[in-house]
Amino acid sequence: MNKDFVSEITDINKDFPQWYTDVVLKTEMVDYGPVKGTMVIRPYGYAIWENIQHYLDAEFKKQGVQNAYFPMFIPESFLKREAEHVEGFAPEVAVVTFAGGQELAEKLIVRPTSETIIGEMFSKWIKSYRDLPYKINQWCNVVRWEKTTRPFLRTSEFLWQEGHTVQASIEDANKDALTMLDVYSNCLKNLLAIPTLTGKKTENEKFAGAVATYSMEAIMKDGKCLQAGTTHNLGQNFAKASNIKFLNQNEKLEYAYTSSWGVSTRLIGALVMVHGDERGLRLPPKVAPIQVVLIPIASKKEGVLEKCNEVKTLLENHGIRVKLDDSNNTPGWKFNEYEMRGVPLRLEIGPRDIENGLATAVRRDTHEKLQLNLNNLPNEVEKTLNLIQNNMYKQAEINLKNSIVETDNFDEMVNEINSGKVALTYHCGNSNCETEIKNKTTIKTRVIIADDNKHTCIYCGKPSKYKLYFGKQY
Amino acid sequence: MNKDFVSEITDINKDFPQWYTDVVLKTEMVDYGPVKGTMVIRPYGYAIWENIQHYLDAEFKKQGVQNAYFPMFIPESFLKREAEHVEGFAPEVAVVTFAGGQELAEKLIVRPTSETIIGEMFSKWIKSYRDLPYKINQWCNVVRWEKTTRPFLRTSEFLWQEGHTVQASIEDANKDALTMLDVYSNCLKNLLAIPTLTGKKTENEKFAGAVATYSMEAIMKDGKCLQAGTTHNLGQNFAKASNIKFLNQNEKLEYAYTSSWGVSTRLIGALVMVHGDERGLRLPPKVAPIQVVLIPIASKKEGVLEKCNEVKTLLENHGIRVKLDDSNNTPGWKFNEYEMRGVPLRLEIGPRDIENGLATAVRRDTHEKLQLNLNNLPNEVEKTLNLIQNNMYKQAEINLKNSIVETDNFDEMVNEINSGKVALTYHCGNSNCETEIKNKTTIKTRVIIADDNKHTCIYCGKPSKYKLYFGKQY
Repeated sequence: MNKDFVSEITDINKDFPQWYTDVVLKTEMVDYGPVKGTMVIRPYGYAIWENIQHYLDAEFKKQGVQNAYFPMFIPESFLKREAEHVEGFAPEVAVVTFAGGQELAEKLIVRPTSETIIGEMFSKWIKSYRDLPYKINQWCNVVRWEKTTRPFLRTSEFLWQEGHTVQASIEDANKDALTMLDVYSNCLKNLLAIPTLTGKKTENEKFAGAVATYSMEAIMKDGKCLQAGTTHNLGQNFAKASNIKFLNQNEKLEYAYTSSWGVSTRLIGALVMVHGDERGLRLPPKVAPIQVVLIPIASKKEGVLEKCNEVKTLLENHGIRVKLDDSNNTPGWKFNEYEMRGVPLRLEIGPRDIENGLATAVRRDTHEKLQLNLNNLPNEVEKTLNLIQNNMYKQAEINLKNSIVETDNFDEMVNEINSGKVALTYHCGNSNCETEIKNKTTIKTRVIIADDNKHTCIYCGKPSKYKLYFGKQY
Repeated sequence: MNKDFVSEITDINKDFPQWYTDVVLKTEMVDYGPVKGTMVIRPYGYAIWENIQHYLDAEFKKQGVQNAYFPMFIPESFLKREAEHVEGFAPEVAVVTFAGGQELAEKLIVRPTSETIIGEMFSKWIKSYRDLPYKINQWCNVVRWEKTTRPFLRTSEFLWQEGHTVQASIEDANKDALTMLDVYSNCLKNLLAIPTLTGKKTENEKFAGAVATYSMEAIMKDGKCLQAGTTHNLGQNFAKASNIKFLNQNEKLEYAYTSSWGVSTRLIGALVMVHGDERGLRLPPKVAPIQVVLIPIASKKEGVLEKCNEVKTLLENHGIRVKLDDSNNTPGWKFNEYEMRGVPLRLEIGPRDIENGLATAVRRDTHEKLQLNLNNLPNEVEKTLNLIQNNMYKQAEINLKNSIVETDNFDEMVNEINSGKVALTYHCGNSNCETEIKNKTTIKTRVIIADDNKHTCIYCGKPSKYKLYFGKQY
């Protein structure tokens, strides 16, 4: 391994945040945009997003969700319709005051999320219980002007999908929120090989305007949590704000019940921070833009490049995403480059391999070297990619389990969390108690996993209400 | 046919623009957004956009283009870097002046197009001829604050893709522009069943900042042209504005050569106005969200709904997009509804059909009634959908040919164009002459199809430079 090369990435064990920034920039997943806090998603990062979109979009459609597109500009007055919502988002909105050569009569908010404008349209479209359920999704950009930003994790503008459903009862709205939480956590499990902690957010941590927020939290390699996706039962709050009424089965006008749910390009950040190692990215095969990199050895020898091209076509026809790097760089340089880029499987093909009817394969997840039969290569590669996908999930699951500490002692919890753990404990459910913990330690509640009144609150000692996770977060 | 129902759509022959608005609203393709000039793309319209995206995205990737995403906010100073560009776009931009609770030091322009911000990133990424060609595309929203708007055709915010390539020579940049024009016109031909007139724009009509603009123009049913997609050879103009330099093969620093190209949700408008008729939409099967609507006849009779569900599954498994309407509405209501929505093929299945082993099929394009064999339905339906697709293209081609008038007399040209034609004629190529024609008649040049110096200019009588089309446009 070329030491000079790898030294370009900060040591993952010494400075995890800097390691992250190095990796996402050097692998050309992302770059900083010219406006502070914005990012450019480069092709290697965007291809991951496309794979996520492809998976989720199919899952949404299975749930009867249809895609649509709503305007990005929200009249300022709309945002103000729901009191908690405006309070939650007002500090971080971007505002258009001038357009088409004129100052606007009403300022326009660039959507930080679209509940209010979609609610306005729902109120026009929905008349009767026969129109329900109504399920919409949009893939789009949103803007939240954050003070501290980091590529993928927190940027002024990011890409996401936001789903919005309308139901005739609060139970059905809540069911939508829970179903979509499952869709999300399955996506992380099956596609991104990321296990998550899922559950309900506390009142303090829920979405501005929601009745209940559910979240999936992924645990990064440094033990910090990342809120990777949230779903919200909005009850009648937004229906009242936007006047979404329907004629119910008893022929009475009633406010509808809505839900909303979203995941964003932040998932790419989670992918990096859950799987990465000292050499850079490690991508699970199912989401990797390049699943197999083909590297010719002694490529000027007769037949080597021909064989590589033949193998490339063979694998592509089998539905595998392959890159053949026939550039003039040395094989050693290429090994490092594609390890850094997290390509799950490297195939080396040289004169000796061809003679023996074999390809040398190296797994990114285990560094294991394999000899694969050239005559049965597509099947052997497919099998190996599946092994890698499963192994990466298992590794991440072990990391997750190892980072959870069960405790009922507050000082121990703080120490453990500060040293990179997540705590499973009990809390009284009191908002002030939760705020005090946060202000004192920057530790927040993550998700409630069960109601519990048999224990005492880890902080105030009063009877417990919830069993939940505490942790620090990105 | 239920007269009351159809009368909801304005007569296509009496008021074509109002017919258009009626059709796009009543078929639930689109709705007006709350901010003047904005649109909501509803699921039935968005599904068409998804089919267009799916087709084009695959074609772009075949051309070596990679998707990426660039920030929507452009520093005001960037837009000003290219003199013609800022002049072209300044009057219609939306401006963010306030974000995150503070007035911004530099105003941000919401992208009307991204040449300047993408150029800035290219200047960081591109160092050497080895990095070229570099081909990027993004699917995104753009904002152009127009005074007169119409759903899909011209709205303050719309969706599009914008491709940007960097090349080492102007010839290659020009070739990209021409190749992408082909990709676009093939998409219109093969997917949307729309023939186009393609060629170069005059100096007056080219993109602000381009060396050359190429366009495909579709002809609507009223004879007006619609600029359906444009591609631009930008020469070194934006490379100079953004400082995109590369080390050429002679190891000298040189400004790069760029191209850009885009199509937008405006294509949905073209689709409506090329194929629609007095009953509403007519959608070519390849782009139709619903290719076949299944309508049960005497649905309460035993076995009818079961058979319909069975047929639905059968067709879906064959890759056909099917909707079974088993609602309580009458068959007559459903016939009208799905004719209005432009569904290419209607299947009616009732007790008698089942007895005879047949399904009654009605083509939207010809109103022809067919009896299809239930035992071989997927193949027969597929065959019929192909016939419809081809026939719709042929019908549109005949309309296009019939709307072209060749003339060398200016008054005749104006009369013909005012009565719904497009004129093929000669022009001197002088910018002032072209402007005079436009100011006098609102008629503009469409595309140049050939250089020609053997004739005289239709307006000023001087020697001709081009053979080109003139017409009115949306």
